[in-house]
Amino acid sequence: MMLLLPTLSSLSHHHHRRHVILLRRLFKPFSTTSSASIAEPLGNLPLTYPTYLIWSSNTSLGKTLVSAGIAASFLLSRQRKRFLYLKPVQTGFPSDSDSRFVFSKLSALSARRKLFRSVLATDHVLKASSSAVAAALPGGVYGGNRFGMFDLDSHRECRIPGEEDGEPSELICRTMFAWRDAVSPHLAAERENGTVEDSNVLGMVQRCLESGLNCGFDEEKMNAFCVVETAGGIASPGPSGTLQCDLYRPFRLPAILVGDGRLGGISGTISAYESLKLRGYDVVAVVIEDHGLVNEVPLGSYLRQSVPVLVLPSIPKDLSDDLMEWFDAARAVFDSLVKTMLSAHSERIKRLHEMPKKAVDVFWWPFTQHNLVSEEDVTVIDSRCGENFAVFKVQNNNVINQEFDGCASWWTQGPDATLQTELARDMGYATGRYGHLMFPENVYEPALECAELLLEGVGKGWASRAYFSDNGSTAIEIALKMAFRKFLCDHGRLSDFVNDNSAERCIQLMVLALTGSYHGDTLGAMEAQAPSSYTGFLQQPWYTGRGLFLSPPTVFLSNNTWNLSLPEGMQSNNLIFANITFSSRNEVFDTSRDESNLAEIYSSFIAHELAQYPETKGSIGALIMEPVIQAAGGMHLVDPLFQRVLVSVCRSKSIPIIFDEVFTGFWRLGTETASELLSCVPDIACFGKLMTGGIVPLAVTLATKSVFESFVGNSKLKALLHGHSYSAHALGCTAAAKSIKWFKDPQTNSNLNSEGRSLKELWDEELVYQISSHPAVQRVIAMGTLFSLELQAEGSNAGYASVYAKSLLKKLREDGVYMRPLGNVVYLMSGPCTSPDICHQLLLKLYRRLDEFSKNH
Amino acid sequence: MMLLLPTLSSLSHHHHRRHVILLRRLFKPFSTTSSASIAEPLGNLPLTYPTYLIWSSNTSLGKTLVSAGIAASFLLSRQRKRFLYLKPVQTGFPSDSDSRFVFSKLSALSARRKLFRSVLATDHVLKASSSAVAAALPGGVYGGNRFGMFDLDSHRECRIPGEEDGEPSELICRTMFAWRDAVSPHLAAERENGTVEDSNVLGMVQRCLESGLNCGFDEEKMNAFCVVETAGGIASPGPSGTLQCDLYRPFRLPAILVGDGRLGGISGTISAYESLKLRGYDVVAVVIEDHGLVNEVPLGSYLRQSVPVLVLPSIPKDLSDDLMEWFDAARAVFDSLVKTMLSAHSERIKRLHEMPKKAVDVFWWPFTQHNLVSEEDVTVIDSRCGENFAVFKVQNNNVINQEFDGCASWWTQGPDATLQTELARDMGYATGRYGHLMFPENVYEPALECAELLLEGVGKGWASRAYFSDNGSTAIEIALKMAFRKFLCDHGRLSDFVNDNSAERCIQLMVLALTGSYHGDTLGAMEAQAPSSYTGFLQQPWYTGRGLFLSPPTVFLSNNTWNLSLPEGMQSNNLIFANITFSSRNEVFDTSRDESNLAEIYSSFIAHELAQYPETKGSIGALIMEPVIQAAGGMHLVDPLFQRVLVSVCRSKSIPIIFDEVFTGFWRLGTETASELLSCVPDIACFGKLMTGGIVPLAVTLATKSVFESFVGNSKLKALLHGHSYSAHALGCTAAAKSIKWFKDPQTNSNLNSEGRSLKELWDEELVYQISSHPAVQRVIAMGTLFSLELQAEGSNAGYASVYAKSLLKKLREDGVYMRPLGNVVYLMSGPCTSPDICHQLLLKLYRRLDEFSKNH
Repeated sequence: MMLLLPTLSSLSHHHHRRHVILLRRLFKPFSTTSSASIAEPLGNLPLTYPTYLIWSSNTSLGKTLVSAGIAASFLLSRQRKRFLYLKPVQTGFPSDSDSRFVFSKLSALSARRKLFRSVLATDHVLKASSSAVAAALPGGVYGGNRFGMFDLDSHRECRIPGEEDGEPSELICRTMFAWRDAVSPHLAAERENGTVEDSNVLGMVQRCLESGLNCGFDEEKMNAFCVVETAGGIASPGPSGTLQCDLYRPFRLPAILVGDGRLGGISGTISAYESLKLRGYDVVAVVIEDHGLVNEVPLGSYLRQSVPVLVLPSIPKDLSDDLMEWFDAARAVFDSLVKTMLSAHSERIKRLHEMPKKAVDVFWWPFTQHNLVSEEDVTVIDSRCGENFAVFKVQNNNVINQEFDGCASWWTQGPDATLQTELARDMGYATGRYGHLMFPENVYEPALECAELLLEGVGKGWASRAYFSDNGSTAIEIALKMAFRKFLCDHGRLSDFVNDNSAERCIQLMVLALTGSYHGDTLGAMEAQAPSSYTGFLQQPWYTGRGLFLSPPTVFLSNNTWNLSLPEGMQSNNLIFANITFSSRNEVFDTSRDESNLAEIYSSFIAHELAQYPETKGSIGALIMEPVIQAAGGMHLVDPLFQRVLVSVCRSKSIPIIFDEVFTGFWRLGTETASELLSCVPDIACFGKLMTGGIVPLAVTLATKSVFESFVGNSKLKALLHGHSYSAHALGCTAAAKSIKWFKDPQTNSNLNSEGRSLKELWDEELVYQISSHPAVQRVIAMGTLFSLELQAEGSNAGYASVYAKSLLKKLREDGVYMRPLGNVVYLMSGPCTSPDICHQLLLKLYRRLDEFSKNH
Repeated sequence: MMLLLPTLSSLSHHHHRRHVILLRRLFKPFSTTSSASIAEPLGNLPLTYPTYLIWSSNTSLGKTLVSAGIAASFLLSRQRKRFLYLKPVQTGFPSDSDSRFVFSKLSALSARRKLFRSVLATDHVLKASSSAVAAALPGGVYGGNRFGMFDLDSHRECRIPGEEDGEPSELICRTMFAWRDAVSPHLAAERENGTVEDSNVLGMVQRCLESGLNCGFDEEKMNAFCVVETAGGIASPGPSGTLQCDLYRPFRLPAILVGDGRLGGISGTISAYESLKLRGYDVVAVVIEDHGLVNEVPLGSYLRQSVPVLVLPSIPKDLSDDLMEWFDAARAVFDSLVKTMLSAHSERIKRLHEMPKKAVDVFWWPFTQHNLVSEEDVTVIDSRCGENFAVFKVQNNNVINQEFDGCASWWTQGPDATLQTELARDMGYATGRYGHLMFPENVYEPALECAELLLEGVGKGWASRAYFSDNGSTAIEIALKMAFRKFLCDHGRLSDFVNDNSAERCIQLMVLALTGSYHGDTLGAMEAQAPSSYTGFLQQPWYTGRGLFLSPPTVFLSNNTWNLSLPEGMQSNNLIFANITFSSRNEVFDTSRDESNLAEIYSSFIAHELAQYPETKGSIGALIMEPVIQAAGGMHLVDPLFQRVLVSVCRSKSIPIIFDEVFTGFWRLGTETASELLSCVPDIACFGKLMTGGIVPLAVTLATKSVFESFVGNSKLKALLHGHSYSAHALGCTAAAKSIKWFKDPQTNSNLNSEGRSLKELWDEELVYQISSHPAVQRVIAMGTLFSLELQAEGSNAGYASVYAKSLLKKLREDGVYMRPLGNVVYLMSGPCTSPDICHQLLLKLYRRLDEFSKNH
């Protein structure tokens, strides 16, 4: 980048004589950040004073007048105050400068209103394109469309004395980025070779918000106020091309919408309002100019009077008018607007403060011992943007903090910020078009599209039917009913019951399953899993454990090596395999292992266990397992060879095979299904969680044609009589169809490998290995979106009820990483589209805190 | 209404000499329909030819030019065609008339382009306000702002000869309602005393669409085309004040959006697009005028190129320009637009046709014997608007039909069209703001607001905690776990297990429940219900029925009388009560019955049954029942006195009481909860279905403080370890909070009685009684939103597997009523806000078809 010589020149300015103009310029081109820096989460957003975004439904509706009016109403009083006006993006500069306008009008109004307290006003323009710099400093050597943004750093200041000569109130106006062309910022940036990345705009806004008011007297409440004025309409592109309503979304500042009082303006105002709502903004007031059409009436009625619509007097068309009289006439409206804004702010703060107490009073959280959760432990989540929570922290001086949702909200989350916005529109669309529709014997587009995508995707090559339900647990209950029926069919037992639905239960049907398995919390799903902390009498008095539960061999990374761990029952006879290791994770999944001796040993172990199972206990009517990873059981990687052998043994005995892919499905482990990793297919599979992208509950049980046919007959009583009211609900199916496509499309998911069948490695391999050899770490698994590690722990520090990891995770919260443990197992989980850079940073943070943790233990 | 004398006068028209002007006027004021007629569902909407709504993101963006361009591109060809241009709402008339503009431009273009085929163009203005009539006919006696709309019926016609003198192509332009003032329709209508109800606008559009093209040559495909041009922006109010995007929603015609090519136009176009999507519209193309700002680039990128953005040449500003050259220049763009519109239409039709076949191929519907469902039985639901489905019918000449969702989509539905639109915005907002957030130890606004509303509403006076889950069945499983723990606590048995979570199951815990009960399809919920069609071995091999199931006395209306029916076990000893009747439904619920002999008989019956229950079978650890109505069991009204006595007996024995209000909750039976009807409260209650208004699955289990406390301790293992990934998901809680408030607010629910505690009677009492004495009817229940009747039936015609009602319900489908039977029980279900008029019409239709049905049986 070239360095340009500064040249002093004076900017012409408005007709306020008291101005003192300071010009400081340092012509370094502004560094555009690398994509990696996008990964860096935003820092703190202070909530100590009201900060509003000023939006408009179109250009030229008077946003800047509204900003100036708010500033005047707030600032010009006896009390000492500070008002911060931020204009992140300005085009048409220097002839247009909204911050200069606010600066000059406020200066003029301060003088006109003969104030008690002095006012010190400043206007500061920070960065500009080369053309804008050249135009602002016409005598300078600089010109042309050079690449980058440059420090213009022009500054003007004006002090208006009040009746008393105490400390002045302050008006701080700032333009952050300016371009010369009076067009949309994305065009100006392109034409003037002055592009700015979103992260730079956000970072600059944040620094201004953090530092701009960081002075002694800010401690007093309600003496500071900030507005951030957007450019053009709410969905006008910012300098990078990102729509402004999307660009500023991570802050989710409350909004003032400057609407349109003209003919046709009702429509534009309502649409703009809806676009803001679709992105999760709260609109605190709508302001329109009076055009004699009483647009405020239909607007008020649309808003059900829950958002005030304020009407400004008609704005003089005469450009020579200094607007002083207009500001006087509009004063009451602005006073009322500021009152609304102040009270909305304090109500928000009040609510944020009271939420933890209310939460511990009225919620009954699942999987939570309330005795162990105090008010201080409660996290107030103000919003989510893509993978990040915006968390409110009282203790931290009232800030909103970004925290990466490192447990993917119980393993459900997939969307990045872009998908979230598109899903918002789609959820609105699905509600507007369908609401919910009854499913049986009906067809509607989202359910059909979703079923088609499932059968062509995760069910490809084997599944022919989609049975929808609400969550993983119900999908499992349905799967079990399917499997047992299929089993009775295949074993010639169906005719015993077909004409006598209430026949004696002369066969006890049992499952074959693995210890450490977990399939959900409803009784049927629990009965299919091995005894665990979740199944004790105190938890589920009706649990009996209807299965033969085999302990599986597992694989894990430890000390830079992938190790095989055989269960006790297998070990004794196979000492030779006790020390098997793998050179890589790929080797673990290699199907050539099918020819190994170990495969034979697995096979005879399984055959032996099945043969030993007493007939009196029942018949094994289904195999059920989580392919590859047992998640709730502690993130264990079961030896894929063992699972493949298990499938093959069961298939040879006509025992239907159920894969529980509720956790593993949809790229969780790097491929769309875990069955791809296993290189074998089930007869029945259950999906949920990530299927909707993580927006609403929806689950599906896929089945083969022959499973389906075991329910076909002439009586309704032979049909599968299981259903939930919201089966195949339109919102869920819409979200699922969208997300399934999004994750597997290289246009939207840049993590896909070239052949589109798997994700690239998200967790830096070197760092993963490094962590695996950390003394505090017992074992590590890194696959797809999952990184997990088990802390070395003994006694009560190990297991599900352990709180051993608590201090580690608390530290990570300070680093902006939200995690929850499974006892002494901690994990990080990204979405399928999360950039490897972000994952790398998460892992680094974890590694650093691990070090600290092990020193203290 | 006054009758005005017709006066002949000639309307000045444009500069096309070949026009033949016909004026016909009949000055009767147009009848504004009564509110009852709103209830009348819309008739058929033909899909035989493409029909599009032309929308615009603002006024004056060239909607009419686009309409004219589409008309020219489609119509002016060698083939014989017909183009219908509809302008439902025109203000500024007669100086502004968009239909006249299209008429005259097309006439001029036809002449200019020297066509092979003649064109016959007509323009017809149907109704106008008195001022508009006076202005259109300045010589007339009529003037002033008289009330109503009047038949202007002005007609002009023009035939442009082609090279050959065959049958002409036709352009039919129609303005339906015109006002004089060039302001928003709602203002013009108000100022000119010419209001028109939404149903009139819709009815008129529909008649035009149905009849306007109803001529011989319409049979050939793709020779007709229609555009309906809206007024102003997409959310500009129509004449009644309803926003146009809401007004036209029942048709859900595909949309062309005329966007804004100017500075700021990207924003307005995107927002308008989003407002259309939020209402379930499909936008097929966006058209903008070229202003040199390449707005099509960011628009295309926003739309991910899935919707084409077409750019029209810049429109001449000179008002004297006849635009002929512009139309020539724009011809290729319009040709491409028409091509897009034609192909989108045929793709839609193709998909609608193939959907039934695909559905029977890939879906596995719940509770459905697929052998009994053929392609022809499948209902294609194109959309929902409030309580109505829009159903596509192939057999009926490709139409979209409105059908009232008479089973409330498995008892979930509550929203009217207005609530649906608000929920669409709220679902978009919740997704945009939160997506889904992990619940345990966290708090976010929708979950907290929802919990607060639940505890202040349906849980008022007893509940202190809200436990969220996904559906009724999971809520029941949670309730059972709560009840059993509480029972163990209260009976001093907790300490047996508290330190040994894997202790022997030395107590068998059982429920006390009623025969005919139904609590959901997961195993735990099923175990708590009496044996039924759903519980046989073929359905659920693991079902054992863990309860003491009592047969309850029921109450029903038959032959104009409310009768009590005692179960067999009670009858023998109480012949005296065999013929108890009630003078009214209110008497059934009267708590003074607590003092009756019957109460004592109930009490001793229950005590006797409990005493007889062998201890070897287990301990009764919970009472579970559906208060008032057993729904899935066949819509039986259990004697409320019996349920009250049951509660009181159990309470005296410290047996926790669970109410399953999944069906009955949220106004289903006319009060917010059925426990209000029973006049007693439970310890635990489950809600679902209608809770979210019927948008997404969400359920809650409410519990008292003391139930909660039986899970509080120092170990996580004592906590309730049951949860689903989407516990308290933000969309569900947002929808629930909105719907709960909507239904109980007299501002939004006009069905509330003055004290706001109950709904007014929705089902006409006289007609209900009449039906109860119909010979085909065995019994009737009418309460709140529910009307049900059991058909007289014997043998296999009775019971759940019966298909006896099939022919009756098929006939009702023809009447636009969608119902599904429970065997020989048929029912109608409205939403809590559905107007009594609509309910009355539904009941009338049912009554008429019942007559027909009984004659054929």
